[in-house]
Order: sequence, then structure tokens, then C-alpha cells
Amino acid sequence: MKVYFDNAATTAMDDRVIEAMLPYMKTHFGNPSSVHSHGREVRTAIERSRKKVAELLNASPSEIFFTSGGTEADNTALVCGIESHGIQHAITSPLEHHAVLHTLEVLEKKGAVKLSILDVNEKGEIDLNQVEELLKANPKSLVSLMHANNEIGNLNDLNRIGELAKSYDAFFHSDTVQTMGHYVHDLKSLPIDAIVAGGHKFHGPKGSGFLYVRKDKKIHPFIHGGAQERNMRGGTENVIGIIGIAKALELAYEDMAGHQSHIEKIKKHFIEKLVQDIPGVEFNGLSAAMDKSLYTVLNVSLPPSPANRGMLLFNLDIEGISASGGSACSSGATVGSHVLRALKHNPERDSVRFSFSRFNTPADVDYAIDKLKELYLVEA
Amino acid sequence: MKVYFDNAATTAMDDRVIEAMLPYMKTHFGNPSSVHSHGREVRTAIERSRKKVAELLNASPSEIFFTSGGTEADNTALVCGIESHGIQHAITSPLEHHAVLHTLEVLEKKGAVKLSILDVNEKGEIDLNQVEELLKANPKSLVSLMHANNEIGNLNDLNRIGELAKSYDAFFHSDTVQTMGHYVHDLKSLPIDAIVAGGHKFHGPKGSGFLYVRKDKKIHPFIHGGAQERNMRGGTENVIGIIGIAKALELAYEDMAGHQSHIEKIKKHFIEKLVQDIPGVEFNGLSAAMDKSLYTVLNVSLPPSPANRGMLLFNLDIEGISASGGSACSSGATVGSHVLRALKHNPERDSVRFSFSRFNTPADVDYAIDKLKELYLVEA
Repeated sequence: MKVYFDNAATTAMDDRVIEAMLPYMKTHFGNPSSVHSHGREVRTAIERSRKKVAELLNASPSEIFFTSGGTEADNTALVCGIESHGIQHAITSPLEHHAVLHTLEVLEKKGAVKLSILDVNEKGEIDLNQVEELLKANPKSLVSLMHANNEIGNLNDLNRIGELAKSYDAFFHSDTVQTMGHYVHDLKSLPIDAIVAGGHKFHGPKGSGFLYVRKDKKIHPFIHGGAQERNMRGGTENVIGIIGIAKALELAYEDMAGHQSHIEKIKKHFIEKLVQDIPGVEFNGLSAAMDKSLYTVLNVSLPPSPANRGMLLFNLDIEGISASGGSACSSGATVGSHVLRALKHNPERDSVRFSFSRFNTPADVDYAIDKLKELYLVEA
Repeated sequence: MKVYFDNAATTAMDDRVIEAMLPYMKTHFGNPSSVHSHGREVRTAIERSRKKVAELLNASPSEIFFTSGGTEADNTALVCGIESHGIQHAITSPLEHHAVLHTLEVLEKKGAVKLSILDVNEKGEIDLNQVEELLKANPKSLVSLMHANNEIGNLNDLNRIGELAKSYDAFFHSDTVQTMGHYVHDLKSLPIDAIVAGGHKFHGPKGSGFLYVRKDKKIHPFIHGGAQERNMRGGTENVIGIIGIAKALELAYEDMAGHQSHIEKIKKHFIEKLVQDIPGVEFNGLSAAMDKSLYTVLNVSLPPSPANRGMLLFNLDIEGISASGGSACSSGATVGSHVLRALKHNPERDSVRFSFSRFNTPADVDYAIDKLKELYLVEA
């Protein structure tokens, strides 16, 4: 049996997304910037996609810029947001994705911005009082806090942070890569300046993404070149990526409540079985608190076991179970998770992130539990 | 009849490229950074693609970095090349694509570099003596000169420019977007530090590209995030884009001489018919000189005609002929071609770029000639 429990790393594409993309591979190949018929039909498709994304997010099409993914969108928001708005100080957390953390660290090293990194407790929670103190002490600030952590699933309250940022006239960016397509983002009511998406996190194509920037917080372009994306991003558009991400978002919104309830059942079932069957199991961050964490992520801390020490993911992989130790983006590096390190996670215990999608079933959980029992109860 | 003569803007995808991409949409969906089986099979495919590209260019796989396209690759080479190598002065030409020209202008405005823009004559030719004088006067220079101009097709001699740059210890970057997949680039013998590619210019997918950076001229990353592309470009890889561009380059190299000879026949035929049938026709830049210009581009200057003035592309489009007034990337803007402006082109004459691919036929030319005769000879 093959079980894919690494949906926070990437998801399988929905067949309907592939179907939507194919005509733009096979026949509608024009350059959308060309004024002739071959170009115009593709331009129309791109602008229809932009309008669809804007409608779903309750934004204006002029606020949506297609990118090559969430990371480019985060880089654009941070590098160009700081430059365009005379930002002198940035506030972020040690749990951010490297697309945010490394970008801000590089900007700090270049002297472009002063950087404050928030404290987190052992559950990965930040303290909004600290955010407020920093905002009070530093005019011209930017706040970058993710909607949900990709490893431990902790949800931040974008509304409260946004109100706080607004009251101190700060630029508020959020890495929403893990929640886009899984939660509703209503950009008319949410006080936020920039959010991002990566299509492959919600059954769209890899290499697709977008950046939302609020109308009255315009920023300079990050990639210079032609007049594409209304002069905001040079380069011939990734047409199939744009068609794909818009279709994937449309499908996500079509039955978001249904997907959520299906996946929540799987996550609850997994938690119950783990607690029941694996003595000493714990959960990292807030991931076992259903209302405080991403419903797609469960980060499990297993009891110390010499046989599995450092080998757990490998042992699961042998049994056909794909899961992750942390962010896939860092797994090429030989260092451990910076998120678990910030939580002062006991290095004697192995941690594994199981992440779910609407394509998973309760049977997937039962299989994984069986295998975990085999791996852990032999020694118990 | 539909005739597509805008192949310098973008090309139709080769069916074999689509076939190569499809499995990575339908079944092999893992994140290449994931260490489990779903991820490893995709990682293998990406590294196989990198190896293929490197072999074709006679480079090392560690010198090839996949990007979202030629524009991002140009931005990376210029922004990070200048930053990483302490470059203080850049030399370029007014005929460069905006991916180069705008990027360097922005860097100049920020004070990151002093910028020298070469003179060009009315045929768009630069003078290498001027390049040498500038290199002599400015240590720590970067030279950025494209291999072939995308509008008028003029070819630069990369070998001579490279030798010159090398003798003054300058960083040499070339925007090779229009020649990649159409000419052989042998990076062992060519004295160059950075070149780029955009897959959609040679029957690959839009949104795909790569940057080559010579081993001993390493640069910092442009997009920060995860450890992808050996820490050189954050962001989950555009897997289908990478598979597609490598396959497209492989197909291009498989019969490059055959494609070239097929397209040269079409271009020659077009030139002969135009000269024979349209009195007063001229050619912009060197595009009618077969050995000095891109074989895929012919830039035609038509005699003044009130009926066609400013309407020529529109009139051709009505007849089913897709051609271009200049770079597609700028056609969204309401300004004319910066290349023809630099050549002091007579604004009374309409110019049109016809650009060819291996999918064009001599019958396409005959049809276009018939329509041009109808448009121009009515008034002659």
C-alpha cells in the first residue's frame, strides 16, 4: 500500500486542473503580450484567471500579480515592500518559512532594514504584546507573520495582527502559502497589505503562484523586464501555471467546507489512534488542537526509540508511507528543522509531520498506525 | 489560412515535449525536495534534466540553475553578478531586451553601478573598440551584450566580446534567449560567464528557463528561501517546466542543422519575394544579411502607405497572419520599439517582424506575400 501524507510539501494535481491546462499546451500557444489573434486568446484566458482569483478572495484584479510560486511572491512583498515604503524595521518570528526568514536576514545583513525576531514559547506561540511593543518603539515597520506554520500547523490570528499593524501604520505581509485554498481569505474585511499563494499546495501546478498587494500599498517590481503584469513582473507569463492555479483555487472554494470536514475527520482519527496505540506519543506545537492549527497538518513527537532514532522517515518510506521531518524546502540541507529547534524540541525524540489532503482516506491512517505500532511496540 | 510568423515572441510546443511533461502532472507529483519515494523519483527526473542540458551545452550540471524564464535568469545574472563580484561599472547596448536594459537602469538609479550604453549605427552594429576603451577606463566592469537581437536579429560575436572581457577581467553575461536551441553553445570553448534560456522560444513551455553561471564566477541567489537548486534559488521547482525545457533543448540539438537549413530556405524565399513584389521594401538592422543575423528573424520596413500607417499588424491579423511590431514583451505598453528608435528608423514607414520556426512552410510565405501585395500594391 502507498500512503501519501506529505501534502504540506506538495499535493497531487486535480485532474480537472490538468484538463484546464492542456489546451494551453496543445493549441493556444500564443504569447499573451502579442496583439494578434494567437496572443489575444491567451491574454483573455490569463485575465479571466486573474478575475477569478480576485473574486474568490474578494479583491480587485489589479491587486493580483502572478508569480513563479509562493517563494518569489514572498521575496517580492518583502524586498520591494521595504524598498517602496521606506520601511526601516521588520518584525517576524523564528518559525517563518525560509522564504521569509532568509529574505529578511539577507536584507538585514545588507543594512536595508533592522530585524526583530519575536520570542516563541514551547508550543510555538507568539505574544502580540511583544509585537505591539516593537511597533510602538519602531515607526516605519513591516510585520511578516505567516497565517499557518507549515511544520507544526499553528494558526496566527491575521485579523488581530492586522488591526495592530494598521494602528501603527505598519506594512503587514503574511505568508499564506499553507492556508490558501484551505481557508477563506476575505481581503475586503481582512486588514492586510500582502498575501501569497503557491498553486501546488492546493492541487494546482508547481511553479505557479500569486502575490496580492493592496491597492493603496503599491510596490516596485522585483523582476525587471517587459511590461507584463502591468509592469509589476517582467517575463513571459507561465500561461499553463496561471490557468492551473486559478482553476485549482476555484475548485478549492467550490467545496471548501466539505474538504475541511473530510480532512478534519482524518486528522482526529489519527490523533485518537496515536494516543490510544502509541504510549508516550506527544504532538508538536498546537497541531493536536483542532481549532488552533491547520486541519491539514499533524506533527507527531514519538517516544525515544534506539531502533528508529534518525531512521523513522526512512522506515516509514520502506512501508510505502510518505511523510516528512519538516519543511520539504529544507530537507536537501543536512540541518534539522529550524522550527522544532525554536520550540526546544527534545532531540532524543523523533518527530514526523503527517499532512493531509482531500484525497486521503481513514484507511490511510489505519495503515500508518499499524506500521507505527510495528516500529514502536516491538520495543515497548 | 492561419500563418504564425511570431516565433521570436513564442513558439508552439512540440508534442514530444508535452508527452514528456504529462507524467509529472498526472502521477509523479512529489516534491523533489522530499526524501521519500514520491519525492525521490521527481528529484531524479530534475537532475537528469539538468545533466542533459549541461551535456548539450558542454557545461557541468553544477553550472545550470533552473529559473522561471529568461527574464528571471537575466535579472539573477545582473543583480547578483554585480553584487557578488564587486562590479562598479556595466557596459551594455541600447538594443538589449528590457530584461537587461531595465534591470541595469534600475541598478544605476540605486547607485549600485555606473552604466555605459554603447553607440550603435543605423544597422544596429556596435563597435568593439568602444567596448575596449570602456573596459580600459573602468576596472571591475560587467559586459552584458545579447547573442542575437530579438527584433532585428543582429548577431553579436560572443567569442570576440568574451575574449575582450576576459583580457580586462570583466564579468561577461549574454542574453542568449533568442539563440538557445537554435545555435550551438559550447561553453567549454566560449569565454563567457553567464548565459540564459527561456524554454518557450524553442518549442518548450512558458515559465521555464535556466541560467548558466561559470563555476569560477559563482554568484549569490536572487530569490531567497529553501535549499533548492543547491541554495541558489528558493522555491519548489517548476517540475514540468524543467522536464519540458530539457526535452525541448534535446530535440533542438537532435537536428539543429536540419531545422536551420529548413528555416533559412523560408527566410531567403521571403526576402526574395519581398524584393521582387513590394517596391521600396527595406530591411531593418542586419536581418536580411543571412550570415550576420538570426535565421529565425526578418524585420521588414515597408514603404510609407497612408492606408496601412499604424494599421499594418492589424491588417495582417485580419488576414490570419500573426506577426509583430517588435518585442512582444513591450507590446502591452503603448510606446514603440526602443530598438527601432535607437536605429533612427523613419517613423513614416511601418515595420513588421516576421519570425520563423521549423513548423513554418514556404506556403506560409507565399500567403503572406499575397496579402502584403494586396495591402501595398493597391496604392502603388
